[in-house]
Amino acid sequence: MERSFGTSERDVVGFGDDVSAINLNNNRLAVLKTDMLVGSTDVPMGMSMRQAARKTVVANVSDFAAKGVSPYAGLVALGLPAKLSERDVRQIANGLSGGAKEYGFPLLGGDTGESKDLVIAISLFGLIDRRRIILRSGAKIGDIVTVTGDFGSASAGLRAVLDRKIRPNKLPRGLARALYHPKAELDIGISLATTGAITASIDSSDGLACSLHELSEMSDVGIRVTDVPVSRAARDFAARYGYDALDLALYGGEEYRLIVTVKRRLLRAAQSAAHGRLKPIGVVTKRTEGIRLSRDGKDTKVEMKGWEHFRS
Amino acid sequence: MERSFGTSERDVVGFGDDVSAINLNNNRLAVLKTDMLVGSTDVPMGMSMRQAARKTVVANVSDFAAKGVSPYAGLVALGLPAKLSERDVRQIANGLSGGAKEYGFPLLGGDTGESKDLVIAISLFGLIDRRRIILRSGAKIGDIVTVTGDFGSASAGLRAVLDRKIRPNKLPRGLARALYHPKAELDIGISLATTGAITASIDSSDGLACSLHELSEMSDVGIRVTDVPVSRAARDFAARYGYDALDLALYGGEEYRLIVTVKRRLLRAAQSAAHGRLKPIGVVTKRTEGIRLSRDGKDTKVEMKGWEHFRS
Repeated sequence: MERSFGTSERDVVGFGDDVSAINLNNNRLAVLKTDMLVGSTDVPMGMSMRQAARKTVVANVSDFAAKGVSPYAGLVALGLPAKLSERDVRQIANGLSGGAKEYGFPLLGGDTGESKDLVIAISLFGLIDRRRIILRSGAKIGDIVTVTGDFGSASAGLRAVLDRKIRPNKLPRGLARALYHPKAELDIGISLATTGAITASIDSSDGLACSLHELSEMSDVGIRVTDVPVSRAARDFAARYGYDALDLALYGGEEYRLIVTVKRRLLRAAQSAAHGRLKPIGVVTKRTEGIRLSRDGKDTKVEMKGWEHFRS
Repeated sequence: MERSFGTSERDVVGFGDDVSAINLNNNRLAVLKTDMLVGSTDVPMGMSMRQAARKTVVANVSDFAAKGVSPYAGLVALGLPAKLSERDVRQIANGLSGGAKEYGFPLLGGDTGESKDLVIAISLFGLIDRRRIILRSGAKIGDIVTVTGDFGSASAGLRAVLDRKIRPNKLPRGLARALYHPKAELDIGISLATTGAITASIDSSDGLACSLHELSEMSDVGIRVTDVPVSRAARDFAARYGYDALDLALYGGEEYRLIVTVKRRLLRAAQSAAHGRLKPIGVVTKRTEGIRLSRDGKDTKVEMKGWEHFRS
């Protein structure tokens, strides 16, 4: 549906990337992004209004992080159900202002109205040198595929509460933080954008597998994954409750890591810029090879799937 | 609630104006605005999905028009109820892209999700020279208060359908256009901002009376209205169905005129820039005089009220 809006000459980062961007002058880009949370589909059991509002900020900031862009200002459109208490509304305001403060930008204004469903739509604005923005489309064969952290905690936390394995207030800390208080890798993203080492980047909010597929499609390449870093918390949960830890890590979502392809000879520089947080997980291959996981002598296809929404 | 988000050093147009704005460099401002339509409260009987989507564009553009700012790009966040047909969704997309085209800016992207209520949140981005933006706060005693058109058609149209006086498809053309296909005065607003004649400006989307009150509060002045231009369509409706035409004009809303205060000696220049569309309706007075209507030897207080939403 987005594509039907068409594009424009001013439009330099088109549909299909984490953000939109448009030419200003002097090689500068205005970077724009809107991302919305809907109460009935995007708020898992056990999440407070404050956490839901903050997470909407995180989801938006994570897309800026993946492009190496610092958010300069934000706006909020809020649709509030009549049944929300004053306390809920205050919590939402606190989550929004707290999230914005955490990532260092002002929320300049917004629009508030009554609606049947809770809706929090945040828009971010930023500026970046045109030559510095990192798109999804620049990965080249031979580049190293890296990630900024491990995977699986958010989906393990979600499965734990959706499948009623663990009550929200009894979740192990690692799962609870991933599910209710995720973080965006803004500092790392901005730092990486200055290195010249990064060829493409995407955030993993759609899940590791989906995000690898999106990156490969936009860059017209394949990816051979040789290692999937699964979080300790996800492995513990999987072992205890009979889940597949690798599936949790690959086919999750709402986990705000960056997936970044790096020029092979500049890997060290990139890792240094990321304060050691950049972990290689594979290499960029030919498009025809698709997205494959090659581990322990086995080679399997990574499917284009992730979680949908939070409804059980 | 907006105020609880706080302000920032970067923030130069604070809460309470039609838009937000933030300092870039070289005296340029980034201008930002978000405005949201909610299906259950903002869509009057008889309005199509296409019209609702286009009207959301108009509401946003009108705020830019009042500041003299041209929209450079926009984003859309859409919450779509599951019960909407594909045709409805296509109509929404058409209304959005048609509206954006009408006012000459690209919609760069957005976010779409399912929600229980229809939500269309548009964000606009624009640029303007800091010295050129017209705020609500600059009106001075003695300035002429002017408007870009007449009033009452939108509220007459709304009363006609809400009070079941006329079926939506039988509305006289003037009322139907005002209610379902309003226009934003973008060209006039941009043209006026270049004259140096304008001291303050606001759009009349909250109704003429409310908007006069808001302007006076932000400028710390009073306003004496000596003439309220009531549309012919509103007068005809009022006469036939027993409404007060003046009330329809003063206490309506969703009518996207500009209310502009002009330096007395530059009135002609401003009227010329507005292609003769700028009609004087009163003068700026001392704050203590409040907002008064002085006509036909009578002097009455203009109340701070407007219409609420579209629910009957």
